[in-house]
Amino acid sequence: MDVSRKILSSFFEPESLAVIGSLREGFFGGRVVVQALLNAGFKGKIYPVHPSYKEILGRKVFSSIKDVSAKVDLALIITGNQAVPDLLRECAEKGVKAAIVVSDGFAERDEKGAILQREIVEIARQEGIRILGPNTAGVANPRIGLTTSPYLAGYDQIKAGGIAIGAQTGMINPQAFPYFDLHYGVSKICDFGNKCDVDECDLLEYLGRDPATKVIALYLESVGDGRRFLNVSREISASKPVLLLKSGRTKEGARVSASHTGSLAANDQIFSAACKQAGVLRLEKFNDLFEIPKLFASQPLPKGNRMAIISYTGAVGVLATDEGATYGLTVPSLSPHTASKLHAIFPGLGMTIVDIGPLMVVARDSDSFYQEILATVLEDDHVDCLFNVLWAGPMEGSSEIYFKTYEVLKRNHSKPIATWIYGPRSPLISTLGQRLEDLGFPVFSDLEMAVKALGMAWQYARRKKERE
Amino acid sequence: MDVSRKILSSFFEPESLAVIGSLREGFFGGRVVVQALLNAGFKGKIYPVHPSYKEILGRKVFSSIKDVSAKVDLALIITGNQAVPDLLRECAEKGVKAAIVVSDGFAERDEKGAILQREIVEIARQEGIRILGPNTAGVANPRIGLTTSPYLAGYDQIKAGGIAIGAQTGMINPQAFPYFDLHYGVSKICDFGNKCDVDECDLLEYLGRDPATKVIALYLESVGDGRRFLNVSREISASKPVLLLKSGRTKEGARVSASHTGSLAANDQIFSAACKQAGVLRLEKFNDLFEIPKLFASQPLPKGNRMAIISYTGAVGVLATDEGATYGLTVPSLSPHTASKLHAIFPGLGMTIVDIGPLMVVARDSDSFYQEILATVLEDDHVDCLFNVLWAGPMEGSSEIYFKTYEVLKRNHSKPIATWIYGPRSPLISTLGQRLEDLGFPVFSDLEMAVKALGMAWQYARRKKERE
Repeated sequence: MDVSRKILSSFFEPESLAVIGSLREGFFGGRVVVQALLNAGFKGKIYPVHPSYKEILGRKVFSSIKDVSAKVDLALIITGNQAVPDLLRECAEKGVKAAIVVSDGFAERDEKGAILQREIVEIARQEGIRILGPNTAGVANPRIGLTTSPYLAGYDQIKAGGIAIGAQTGMINPQAFPYFDLHYGVSKICDFGNKCDVDECDLLEYLGRDPATKVIALYLESVGDGRRFLNVSREISASKPVLLLKSGRTKEGARVSASHTGSLAANDQIFSAACKQAGVLRLEKFNDLFEIPKLFASQPLPKGNRMAIISYTGAVGVLATDEGATYGLTVPSLSPHTASKLHAIFPGLGMTIVDIGPLMVVARDSDSFYQEILATVLEDDHVDCLFNVLWAGPMEGSSEIYFKTYEVLKRNHSKPIATWIYGPRSPLISTLGQRLEDLGFPVFSDLEMAVKALGMAWQYARRKKERE
Repeated sequence: MDVSRKILSSFFEPESLAVIGSLREGFFGGRVVVQALLNAGFKGKIYPVHPSYKEILGRKVFSSIKDVSAKVDLALIITGNQAVPDLLRECAEKGVKAAIVVSDGFAERDEKGAILQREIVEIARQEGIRILGPNTAGVANPRIGLTTSPYLAGYDQIKAGGIAIGAQTGMINPQAFPYFDLHYGVSKICDFGNKCDVDECDLLEYLGRDPATKVIALYLESVGDGRRFLNVSREISASKPVLLLKSGRTKEGARVSASHTGSLAANDQIFSAACKQAGVLRLEKFNDLFEIPKLFASQPLPKGNRMAIISYTGAVGVLATDEGATYGLTVPSLSPHTASKLHAIFPGLGMTIVDIGPLMVVARDSDSFYQEILATVLEDDHVDCLFNVLWAGPMEGSSEIYFKTYEVLKRNHSKPIATWIYGPRSPLISTLGQRLEDLGFPVFSDLEMAVKALGMAWQYARRKKERE
């Protein structure tokens, strides 16, 4: 396992990086990568490689990687597919141990491409190089300003955080998801591409020991080595949640996903049972991949399955209860002490769902009431976690009450909180969401997603308990 | 039925409206309503009623509704609960036939409130007034600038469209959902509140004959008269889709929803079967309530279950296929004619999922290619509907290609299209979405939602076929 760890370090923590291939202007290519690295403040060395440029973006261009005199940890190859074998051999001569092959036209295209892919795997094995890809946009590690995606993203930085995302698709790369606008905190991103060499097991082993990674979210269409995957997952999920979205769940999906997923997809129920055994939490929808990890990355685990709900309306409470029940969550009756405290604040706040709607309409000084209600509910021994609903009203400064309350909570809360914000103006919802995310509280895009995150946290916590 | 139709017209199409109650400054109350009506361009007469004001917002204030000499179609009562019975009697004396009781503190609060609620129902029956509420924000009818919500929404207009939303919660009112920012088109909004009189059946009968309404979305916690609901739904769903989100599906949810839903919620499976018989399409999540109707309101129904997918990545195609399969959709092999046309445009575009990712990276003139690909796929006899995925790239003007293509499509397309937009910047995604919505193409917030909308359209279309 230490070998994987060490090799994958070259992909995620390189001190030097060669960018081999097209350097022309545009929204795709090596120039985009070099610019993105500069924008993100990459501290390592960058070596653009191209036979016919002398300089781009103030950096010297090398005509071959062999002309770089310093050590190169990672090579990024963005060329036509036919050029890849020779370039890999040159990388090997140079002593490079890790290569990201962005080029497409391999097994994903046709039989000729599949032959070429087998050829580069052969080279990699012979020369002792590990390959990520081909047909990938590579990796990102925001802590060191590393991003290898050759597509223009339109923003400079991804926030450093605890979530690692690995996927057999480019849909997780910086150009495909608004990491920046959502103030989304990432430890590592890994696009497996065709997975000819580095795969989900290698990544899991690396991330399992990566101190920056608190939760691992995977999207897979196929699992290369099912047994190894389950073994590695079992080990890692003991200390870090492993969340998996696997497509090809249905016969239709498996058929479309075709050759490479056929075998496992046909046995999705068996695979699902195996995942459960191995402690892997299965996701259902594409957005789950981005949303569910947020709770694990920032909140403590719940100690039990009792979810308190604070809401502006009863309906949201009932919908949240329905959703929670499917994950084994129950909405407790609050303790008599809590109930009487809440009643003293405002009659009718509720003994199960805490409906603050009527209070917030009439209360002149709702600020202090609000903080007190949250603290009271969270202190209740009957409560293990909280689903909190915020209304982002259109009145000037009306979101401050939430921000102030969460600022106080941040200093001292031991129960997970999942937040959903609704309201009449999209920008107000986004802005408040970003501020709370920056405070370390996950905000979810819909109410059921928030509850699902708590539900999956409970499932993970329960399994951990059972293992102890 | 004509009686309901006529009475509910007073709620949704009043020519004159009295606003009775608090007129002080703030984010809640009668002043907010008067201002909102003025901002929305309400063409009818507005009569503010309050004993101690002379004038607000340039309008004369009447000390009692009885002082209004002209006819009043609709009264909106926003006062303390104790004042409501007398005000209703005054309305009756004035000849008002419809009253929206915003006031809370009725059956939703306690037994005393429940007694008061029975009292106002009694008055209504005796005096021949219909009541919407109590504990409601009332209605909206964007076509005539009618909005009765006493909460500040922070925007002036809701776009007129084909979607009617009725709900036993305030979560659908203008202050709770960003109708304006999403360019969301509404025919009618109705918040039932405590449903002491006007209920889902009255609303269904009215909307069934409302030419502006193309699809009806309901949120209910309880169904007052199950038999009538199913009968009315059966009749109306023959010509307009009726979509229902009902909470209290689980035992937990039913327990929390408590007294008023107990009976039906306990038999959710039976209710579900009855809905199916009556042609009611059941929704699952809160967002479904807003998103699924968009397809019905703007797109033709699919003639079969074959869904084409145009995407930038294979993964999205497989996930969409999985989701579609759960609604009976299948992803067809494109016809040989289509396949060869696509191959001539770009090799490897695909025979099932049309993966335009590689093409869009390399093609210099992707504009013309893109239009041709969409037209070719939509023309294929093997295709009944289209799930189309757009990448909102960060390059200046890069969304124009989609806009232009959809502008052309708008003039001539007979198959429903559901669109999902992804990309690196939230504002770009929103802006493109709004533009396409304005063209009449529904854009969904996540990929599975888009597919689900096509799936539910197919379920509705199939039932309609079977009935014929």
